[in-house]
Amino acid sequence: MALFTAVCSPEARQALCEAAFRQPKILQAAAVFIISGDLLGYQALAARLQPVVAAGQMDQATADGWVAFAQSAFHEQPQAQRDEAMRSASLAAMALMLAATEAGWASCPMSGFDPAAVRKLAGLPESHLPVLLVAVGKAAATQAQKVRAPVEQLWRRI
Amino acid sequence: MALFTAVCSPEARQALCEAAFRQPKILQAAAVFIISGDLLGYQALAARLQPVVAAGQMDQATADGWVAFAQSAFHEQPQAQRDEAMRSASLAAMALMLAATEAGWASCPMSGFDPAAVRKLAGLPESHLPVLLVAVGKAAATQAQKVRAPVEQLWRRI
Ligand SMILES: Cc1cc2nc3c(=O)[nH]c(=O)nc-3n(C[C@H](O)[C@H](O)[C@H](O)COP(=O)(O)O)c2cc1C
Ligand SMILES: Cc1cc2nc3c(=O)[nH]c(=O)nc-3n(C[C@H](O)[C@H](O)[C@H](O)COP(=O)(O)O)c2cc1C
Repeated sequence: MALFTAVCSPEARQALCEAAFRQPKILQAAAVFIISGDLLGYQALAARLQPVVAAGQMDQATADGWVAFAQSAFHEQPQAQRDEAMRSASLAAMALMLAATEAGWASCPMSGFDPAAVRKLAGLPESHLPVLLVAVGKAAATQAQKVRAPVEQLWRRI
Repeated sequence: MALFTAVCSPEARQALCEAAFRQPKILQAAAVFIISGDLLGYQALAARLQPVVAAGQMDQATADGWVAFAQSAFHEQPQAQRDEAMRSASLAAMALMLAATEAGWASCPMSGFDPAAVRKLAGLPESHLPVLLVAVGKAAATQAQKVRAPVEQLWRRI
């Protein structure tokens, strides 16, 4: 599961800038978010499915099956935990960026930062991995969208 | 950089289903995509920035700086390469899912599959990591959106 941390106070913004190789966007943007993923999210799955079962949207046997699968896939599997934190947080980051676009804002995903320093300044638990920063603001007037790779390089069919 | 592979032939669909723990959605969906990330994408950065520089959108010194940074961050850093493949492909997967939603389709991200088997059946190079499958189709009439976690659990402010 992903968590958004809005970095609002000037002190937190300054500390984040230091932890992100002093990239100027961190101070310039109207808003900056840390998107982190929970390495131990699978441990909360049973509790998260409980209201789904209670609402009659899933039967208990299916929920138990999902929990057993998650346990076998993630328990004591640090690489799988990390991969899933990366996936969940990145999916969430793109949803945020497209929502920002729709609301008239420009945004920039950033992976250039020190995750341990960001975790610490944000007060995130050890089990939370900072995956991306997203800066949201007004695009600089001089900033044209960069030339994109041709679509043929981005997809294929089998 | 991310790559979309549309899995169209019945043979490829069947092989993908086997590689994804026989999840029935793989055969039932109108379309299924493999979204993979390039572990060695950083090696192509100089070539990818060249048209950006040529179009006058970035100066050569900035492009050289990005390439040097990417080299230091990713060269012989397998975990960083994997993380970045996960990020890029997951960002791309969410863009695909939201585009599908806008076009009136339901979609489902799936990480329950064997990446080595998927790489092989899709004919992807060793340097491409399958990150997510996305099934796109019509939602089953019986399928209600599951109860979501309260928004207070998803964001915080510092
Ligand atoms: C996974 C990922 C990580 C990125 N990290 C950074 C970063 O640390 N700093 C930055 O300025 N841009 C970062 N970018 C943003 C790219 O620079 C940007 O998407 C690209 O240059 C296209 O820019 P444009 O949309 O203005 O054309 C990152 C992009 C991705 C996909
Ligand atoms: C990273 C990730 C991996 C997932 N993997 C699978 C999967 O392998 N199979 C599957 O059926 N659903 C998978 N899901 C989808 C979830 O089951 C689905 O998003 C969740 O149940 C909410 O469903 P709803 O939108 O129908 O309410 C995955 C979701 C995420 C975010």
